[in-house]
Amino acid sequence: MKKIALLCLVLVVGLVAGCACPCANTKVAAPEKVLRHVVMFQFTANTTPEQLKDIEAAFRALPTKIPGITGFEWGTNVSPENKNNGLTHCFFLTFASEAARDAYLPHPAHKAFGASLKGHVEKVCVLDYWSQP
Amino acid sequence: MKKIALLCLVLVVGLVAGCACPCANTKVAAPEKVLRHVVMFQFTANTTPEQLKDIEAAFRALPTKIPGITGFEWGTNVSPENKNNGLTHCFFLTFASEAARDAYLPHPAHKAFGASLKGHVEKVCVLDYWSQP
Repeated sequence: MKKIALLCLVLVVGLVAGCACPCANTKVAAPEKVLRHVVMFQFTANTTPEQLKDIEAAFRALPTKIPGITGFEWGTNVSPENKNNGLTHCFFLTFASEAARDAYLPHPAHKAFGASLKGHVEKVCVLDYWSQP
Repeated sequence: MKKIALLCLVLVVGLVAGCACPCANTKVAAPEKVLRHVVMFQFTANTTPEQLKDIEAAFRALPTKIPGITGFEWGTNVSPENKNNGLTHCFFLTFASEAARDAYLPHPAHKAFGASLKGHVEKVCVLDYWSQP
């Protein structure tokens, strides 16, 4: 019975150390100020749906090729306001630092992606900001 | 000793049920698909810094006046790429549903904010998207 009690005690300590700590961190962390990189595109009329899929996949692959991107999401316009100035795609990247963003811009993988867009971009809009509440 | 073993067992079960479950949820939950509402502005040259602060504060106050906004952040352009087309401010709102966004647009507080911008907006760009990884 002593062995069972000891085993249970080890389990309790293990659970407290291994589980309660991450839970607490998740709850108490203050909102982090991060660098957002918002990229919007209008593609040319001659860009086919297949080419669009390739472009979307190529952009989505950048976080696997370039370090320092801490967040990535994207989507296509569903606003009913008609104030998107023809822009249809939004890619929303997050960097932990200015240095990470500055390393991303001239990175060979980013440059190669940019080159692959040749002839497909009608309009582009890029705005970076430090997130404030 | 039997009592100690039983107590330990209760503790283990309690920890597993009360702590491991939220942890597991955090880890296994699929990324939530949310509706983003991206608003970018260029303000007129005659808009004073004080008026800009009022506009920023008025936009920031909207989540306290309109239900359904589950995320809000904003910032001013720091991109070195010069592809922001004159747009200087980005407001990034999140809605849990299309219904919440649709209720936000004609909401009196949103309409009043829009009216307060009269004479101050040189350019605006609005793009909504459902977030995809």
